[in-house]
Amino acid sequence: MGNGKSGIFDTEAGRCLQQLARQPYDLTAPESLTSGGRLEKYVCRSDSLRLLYSTQRVTDQVIDALQELADECCLVEQFRQMRRGAVLNRIDGWPSENRQVLHTSCRDIFSSSPAEPSAAAQAKDNLSQLKDFLGDLETGRISNALGEKFDTLIHVGIGGSDLGPRAIYESLRAFGRSDRKVYFISNVDPDDAAAVLEQVNLATSLVVIVSKSGTTMETLANEQIVREVLRRADLDPRNHCVAITGEGSPMDNLACYLRSFHMYDFIGGRFSITSMVGMVTLGFALGYEKILDFLQGAAEIDLLAEEPDIRSNLPLLLAMLGVWNHTFLGYPTLAVLPYCQALHRFPAHLQQCDMESNGKSIDRLGRKLTHQSGPILWGEPGTNGQHAFFQLLHQGTEIVPVEFIGFLQSQRGIDVEVSGTLSQQKLVANLLAQSVALATGKQDENPNRRFPGNRPSLLLIAERLTPAVMGALLAVYEAKIVFQGFTWNINSFDQEGVQLGKVLATRFLICMTEGQKRHDSLESKLLQIVLEKGC
Amino acid sequence: MGNGKSGIFDTEAGRCLQQLARQPYDLTAPESLTSGGRLEKYVCRSDSLRLLYSTQRVTDQVIDALQELADECCLVEQFRQMRRGAVLNRIDGWPSENRQVLHTSCRDIFSSSPAEPSAAAQAKDNLSQLKDFLGDLETGRISNALGEKFDTLIHVGIGGSDLGPRAIYESLRAFGRSDRKVYFISNVDPDDAAAVLEQVNLATSLVVIVSKSGTTMETLANEQIVREVLRRADLDPRNHCVAITGEGSPMDNLACYLRSFHMYDFIGGRFSITSMVGMVTLGFALGYEKILDFLQGAAEIDLLAEEPDIRSNLPLLLAMLGVWNHTFLGYPTLAVLPYCQALHRFPAHLQQCDMESNGKSIDRLGRKLTHQSGPILWGEPGTNGQHAFFQLLHQGTEIVPVEFIGFLQSQRGIDVEVSGTLSQQKLVANLLAQSVALATGKQDENPNRRFPGNRPSLLLIAERLTPAVMGALLAVYEAKIVFQGFTWNINSFDQEGVQLGKVLATRFLICMTEGQKRHDSLESKLLQIVLEKGC
Repeated sequence: MGNGKSGIFDTEAGRCLQQLARQPYDLTAPESLTSGGRLEKYVCRSDSLRLLYSTQRVTDQVIDALQELADECCLVEQFRQMRRGAVLNRIDGWPSENRQVLHTSCRDIFSSSPAEPSAAAQAKDNLSQLKDFLGDLETGRISNALGEKFDTLIHVGIGGSDLGPRAIYESLRAFGRSDRKVYFISNVDPDDAAAVLEQVNLATSLVVIVSKSGTTMETLANEQIVREVLRRADLDPRNHCVAITGEGSPMDNLACYLRSFHMYDFIGGRFSITSMVGMVTLGFALGYEKILDFLQGAAEIDLLAEEPDIRSNLPLLLAMLGVWNHTFLGYPTLAVLPYCQALHRFPAHLQQCDMESNGKSIDRLGRKLTHQSGPILWGEPGTNGQHAFFQLLHQGTEIVPVEFIGFLQSQRGIDVEVSGTLSQQKLVANLLAQSVALATGKQDENPNRRFPGNRPSLLLIAERLTPAVMGALLAVYEAKIVFQGFTWNINSFDQEGVQLGKVLATRFLICMTEGQKRHDSLESKLLQIVLEKGC
Repeated sequence: MGNGKSGIFDTEAGRCLQQLARQPYDLTAPESLTSGGRLEKYVCRSDSLRLLYSTQRVTDQVIDALQELADECCLVEQFRQMRRGAVLNRIDGWPSENRQVLHTSCRDIFSSSPAEPSAAAQAKDNLSQLKDFLGDLETGRISNALGEKFDTLIHVGIGGSDLGPRAIYESLRAFGRSDRKVYFISNVDPDDAAAVLEQVNLATSLVVIVSKSGTTMETLANEQIVREVLRRADLDPRNHCVAITGEGSPMDNLACYLRSFHMYDFIGGRFSITSMVGMVTLGFALGYEKILDFLQGAAEIDLLAEEPDIRSNLPLLLAMLGVWNHTFLGYPTLAVLPYCQALHRFPAHLQQCDMESNGKSIDRLGRKLTHQSGPILWGEPGTNGQHAFFQLLHQGTEIVPVEFIGFLQSQRGIDVEVSGTLSQQKLVANLLAQSVALATGKQDENPNRRFPGNRPSLLLIAERLTPAVMGALLAVYEAKIVFQGFTWNINSFDQEGVQLGKVLATRFLICMTEGQKRHDSLESKLLQIVLEKGC
């Protein structure tokens, strides 16, 4: 399809899939999951992950048509171009960001022939600076005014500078250094900073402030709160604060910061975990070797994503199954449900990465879309969710495709046998049971105990959630989102939709501070009602 | 409508609303928000909360029709009956739970004429026991084997025994006693318990285990993990563990527990926060007086919910605006977005409370519904969300109605002025700006900078998130969910949809432990593939 046609339904494969979607595979029929070797056949592997998709409403014919759609839309070719530095963040014919999309370069550091050599060299250079910095923290060459080592890191950022690093930190806490703690401040709600600051020992705290532009309203406000608290504790903020920011931004200033690490225009915030945005904090928490493992896990998936065969390319298959459910079967949302407590913030990160990328209404030529773009993504860990919203998944009138994520072993290996099985076995048994229950449903004389079934899900399975597996899982979802954006022919790399709110917020702030001056504006009137007094 | 008719579209008001939904109020027209005194008129008040709904796609005519629908469906009358002990948890003509629905009795302790006197007396009795227990912890009459006071509480439960207490605890941490800490364990993932247990001082920890049946698989497994760790630390579990469970359940046994608090069949898990399920842990964290404030806030809303006029009955109005958006305008999801970091787990609690209650497919006579039941509910705090999924809210192809929650003052009162405004002012300005931006949208020559608008939202505003306000907010949403269930003519109080997964999980567990015996079953085959070996 390239950039030429807007409508996915105008492609040959699109029309074929529309036809197939009228009678999707019936998962409730007898032997529906076991016949034709379906269970064994519908498995796709990467080095560390397996995607089991027998519980999707697909047949060989559907997968073939999804392959054709992927080919017609040149998905793999566009992904290859992206990794090699193509300017894919653009809307043709209209002013737009006009940038490369090179988050993959952050982990393209293990190959002797990286896809985009200059960005990869820069990534290596940044990592080398980080290694030195972490070494200096370790030896105490960098320490506080009393010569004590830093044992705490406060990460200040919002959106892409917060959700990703936080989700990955939480996912790998089991591998963290026991002598170090990490906290996050993001919300402009002053209670967020206050709740964190009352818990930490400021004297031995590094404060990492992350903002590409150096002008993010929330992050600047929180930085000032932290600096104020440092000063009140007789600590010099300059010796505690580290900047992660664009080169030459107002924050890129060693008079105010102990150290500066750089961010680049060619890496969008929501794709920036593997850049310094995530690596400084994760390096502090986990140590340098483990972040290399994490990056290597991601790098392996980036290479796999260039494989043209949908049945061998796990992220591509995941993307196209999502397109099948959303575009052709018409389900508006997607639940990502990790059976793993450590992944409790991973859905929140994906929510940003997916919905900010693919929540668009125009194509790459600026034309209104004639199909739906990205779904609403949400999720919480299982088995917790089973005791919460799963009622709706099984018996509600809204149908929700589910992506389950599970692991055969726990991270910490501490477990107890109760009623003959370990907790980890119970966790895996429940994961598999839910996937089967959603698919097959169950008949019953009592209408309240009937399960309609035919609710699609898939399983992403790995042996254990290690740093390398987490890197792979992250890269799978990043590539999935990119592939889907290409399929829907949208620019997944900008976020013009956040601008209007910023402009209006400024008007309300002006109204708050200027008081009575603008009595007639909408802002003034609404503020009067909300504050129940003149503004 | 009562129980007679299944279809909301068969009512006179339903047909009228269908008609009105063909041309809903245009929020993008010039002066759309300010004309006709709309901003001032579309405000509904309770003692502590205000609901501003000028940014909904409604007119006076729509509100009148929603009032008629509420009347035709006897919503307020059913709510009154519920509070007075009617057996509303039932499906007529089919085996069902056949129970009263009396969560409101837990806070019906301030009136001299409670709605259901025996349940209210029981609630008072429970609170009195809790008061004594908290007093004994305070004085040290109850202490550990060394006579040290308990300073930590580990709350073990799942679903309704976890999400609610956790959400409310997080929301009120600012009011918590600084000498006490609370932790939660819920997931059967053994890493959940392990991560908590490595942080606590077991010797001074109370362990509160919550399960109505005393047989919840996850909770029993986690209890055994905790008991094992206590024993290894030479601590007698009986002196550390407190049971919250049904009278006569396997857990109601003072040989194994320091104390037993009771749960009742007439209070469903997801509505149980104001029972002992939430009050023991919150009482420990906040002190007895503050939980009374919390209960009083809830009690005031329960009374307000009996007011017949939709324009004065805040929870009823909230419910009917939700019905308008979901049933008549056809939006499948609902985002609840608190501009308040302390409410960061409140959407997860509501997700359970709403989706488990109203994610149903049959009516109260067991007939298949001819309209959609409850929406998919999701949400994260603002302003964080603005830097994440708001792109889709503003410019995506899926339209998401939003319920914003905001407060004029912060909880902790620690704030710094940056660029002329406090963080709290920035928070409120952004809240209002988003609501206006979603409603009015914006034209632009550049199609990528166009905002279609007409995306409905509302504001729930209070002065400050205190215990009483939190109680009110909780009761508003509980009543809303109940009113909507009545409107859709479903039983909001059972959860048969969670049973099939439990049955299938047991089959997988048997297959795991019995090994090779059942080679041909679906469970055995799937396990072989997942484990990549025989099971």
